[in-house]
Amino acid sequence: MSELLETVQTSDLITKAQGAKAAAGVMAQMSTAQKDGALKRISEQLLKEQDFILEENRKDIEAGKQAGMNESLVDRLKLDESRLGDMASALLQLTELQDPIGEKLEEWERPNGLKMEKIRVPLGVIGMIYEARPNVTVDASSLCLKTGNAVVLRGSSTAIHSNKALVQVIHNALEGSGLPKEAVQLVEDTSRETAAQMFKLNDYLDVLIPRGGAKLIQTVVANATVPVLETGAGNCHVFIDESADPAMAIRIALNAKVQRPSVCNSCETVLVHAAWAEQHLDELVLALQENGVQIHGDKTVQQWNGVVPATEEDWGTEYLALEAAVKVVGSVEEAIDHINSYGTQHSEAIVSEDADSIGKFFNRVDAAAVYHNASTRFTDGFEFGFGAEIGISTQKLHARGPMGLPALTSTKYLVHGTGQTK
Amino acid sequence: MSELLETVQTSDLITKAQGAKAAAGVMAQMSTAQKDGALKRISEQLLKEQDFILEENRKDIEAGKQAGMNESLVDRLKLDESRLGDMASALLQLTELQDPIGEKLEEWERPNGLKMEKIRVPLGVIGMIYEARPNVTVDASSLCLKTGNAVVLRGSSTAIHSNKALVQVIHNALEGSGLPKEAVQLVEDTSRETAAQMFKLNDYLDVLIPRGGAKLIQTVVANATVPVLETGAGNCHVFIDESADPAMAIRIALNAKVQRPSVCNSCETVLVHAAWAEQHLDELVLALQENGVQIHGDKTVQQWNGVVPATEEDWGTEYLALEAAVKVVGSVEEAIDHINSYGTQHSEAIVSEDADSIGKFFNRVDAAAVYHNASTRFTDGFEFGFGAEIGISTQKLHARGPMGLPALTSTKYLVHGTGQTK
Repeated sequence: MSELLETVQTSDLITKAQGAKAAAGVMAQMSTAQKDGALKRISEQLLKEQDFILEENRKDIEAGKQAGMNESLVDRLKLDESRLGDMASALLQLTELQDPIGEKLEEWERPNGLKMEKIRVPLGVIGMIYEARPNVTVDASSLCLKTGNAVVLRGSSTAIHSNKALVQVIHNALEGSGLPKEAVQLVEDTSRETAAQMFKLNDYLDVLIPRGGAKLIQTVVANATVPVLETGAGNCHVFIDESADPAMAIRIALNAKVQRPSVCNSCETVLVHAAWAEQHLDELVLALQENGVQIHGDKTVQQWNGVVPATEEDWGTEYLALEAAVKVVGSVEEAIDHINSYGTQHSEAIVSEDADSIGKFFNRVDAAAVYHNASTRFTDGFEFGFGAEIGISTQKLHARGPMGLPALTSTKYLVHGTGQTK
Repeated sequence: MSELLETVQTSDLITKAQGAKAAAGVMAQMSTAQKDGALKRISEQLLKEQDFILEENRKDIEAGKQAGMNESLVDRLKLDESRLGDMASALLQLTELQDPIGEKLEEWERPNGLKMEKIRVPLGVIGMIYEARPNVTVDASSLCLKTGNAVVLRGSSTAIHSNKALVQVIHNALEGSGLPKEAVQLVEDTSRETAAQMFKLNDYLDVLIPRGGAKLIQTVVANATVPVLETGAGNCHVFIDESADPAMAIRIALNAKVQRPSVCNSCETVLVHAAWAEQHLDELVLALQENGVQIHGDKTVQQWNGVVPATEEDWGTEYLALEAAVKVVGSVEEAIDHINSYGTQHSEAIVSEDADSIGKFFNRVDAAAVYHNASTRFTDGFEFGFGAEIGISTQKLHARGPMGLPALTSTKYLVHGTGQTK
């Protein structure tokens, strides 16, 4: 271990990670009733200690404004009665969801008489690394508690007062709930060095989940030796096939682009089949422009006023804004190849009435979710009906696409014998 | 990217990884019949080109002997007619197993009419890093092909002639099979630098699987940014409870320790309840010693002749040899705490007739597989009835315990709409 680990600064991280690991053993034994009871107490406590939380939150807001933080970041950071109310409701909703822990996934018997069972168990200790959204503090803690895990939270320095207040409220609520307070740990040292140490804390953390922008996620993926659940980056496409219903195609492309451009399941590039484009490209371009979308177009699309030329870089860009790349392609195959080259394997849609095109698209596009005649915006744990969402995985290992509670679990084999040695 | 990547040495790795990635797209489209047909061709070709393979293998054996390689390593490296025959049979057995790709795992409909499906898809490109066992070359390639993946193999320099010969034979067999040759890639540069680059090849590799000793696995885990499937290390225990049937307990402890001490599911420490020890410890110690086991004992156990004192280090040691630590404990709780402190979460057994003890043990011991009245030696893909084994995962993410074909797959959501945008 490096000498840094000896310093006071870093021992806070290690102490908290050790506390979380010890608490994880206790958490794994908690009953559904105990866990749901604790979530209810947190929900109540959030409302009860609202004034304290908002006061601490104001300190972050003021510091942010003084440091010149831009408005949208200040908005993300800000808590108010309505947002706290939403958090409290989300906690209650979580108590209504089925507890995945202990679920029997498989059961079989071997010829030698061994009786085998596979059951769900908690992952253990989950490390969350996230940006200045204090709601993640409550969100992540509650999802981890519901699934019998412990959590080590490392939020942004710009939200430190809010995060400390929220974790204090959670700790107060856990007191007397039967759940160990140590199951929720906040790393108060928000230095990069501490984050870097957290990346390699394999002795204590079973998984790291980064929540935030592409840069944060890439930093974690590129540096962590703790297994990572990669979430987030979405360079999503809508492909309008030759046979697409024009009104439906334009409605879906518009929805995917403009409903909420800042999220990962929004559309960044619209691919249009040449035959459809001949008839309807005009309508599509105007609809996007009327909704305030700046279009980066290929040669064909550049014929329209206000369209700027798309560069090679545009095909790979996640704008997360009212901007879209638009390209005319000669076939479904060309669309698929484009998506597999430039996409981030998140969500990809085809609008088509042709079974053959749809089949090829579903089969060959490599993404967590593929859509036929529906918007990419549906890639979401709640829209999928999971009742909760840890994030949207863009990796192939462990979980892919929207992650509900089972993504925070592992499994264990229970084997019952009668003295077998062969 | 570092300058090293520009050198001739490393471009071989990148070229091969790119080839594998392109081939993975083709592999994902292969039918079960095509894949099984290719496996049969490889099986035949291995027997047909036996002389060539054995001749190349002899070069490795001779080089190994000249370099002073110890006998057990030479034995691992060695191929002969019987071992090639086993490989060929294993390939045919693999064709009998169900193809997991395309399997529908879930299907449901949302209130808005969206029809959801979750299906199994290949992982993509699998990186294998392994030691001087040429059988892994064929084993890993065939499991990856069966599951529609591509593989980048990085074996040991001491097996390079054998590995090149085997991959050449696989390539010959794939010619005309419909499967792309590029799906199986052997990295011929076995330098540490190339391995280190492979650890961070996130652009091309979806997962890394290290197969070998604890040191190799730890090096990969500590350095890889590509997601790792951690396999192998097993500090397994047998706990003999107060109520254990003496003959059964001794039979299980002996089997777990002596049947094949070099493997990860063998037992390293036997924990004995004090009440049982009073009556039967003598019998247990003598049985182990008669079978050639060197015992590292705690104070009680040291009373027997030939027992050496156990140090703190012994409790954490994976001997992988005819050595065992033996400790007397006061309760099932003490046994559980010992296991959770020193174990590697692999396989843990209790011998007991007491439902309460068994329940506590199953509930609180944190391991991939827990056993009641059976040997830890059963933790194995074939013994579990999976028909194949990629390895035994000791991590909690993605797969835990013996990994069959599904461990080499991911999932994909297919969403069918009728124009939905909300």
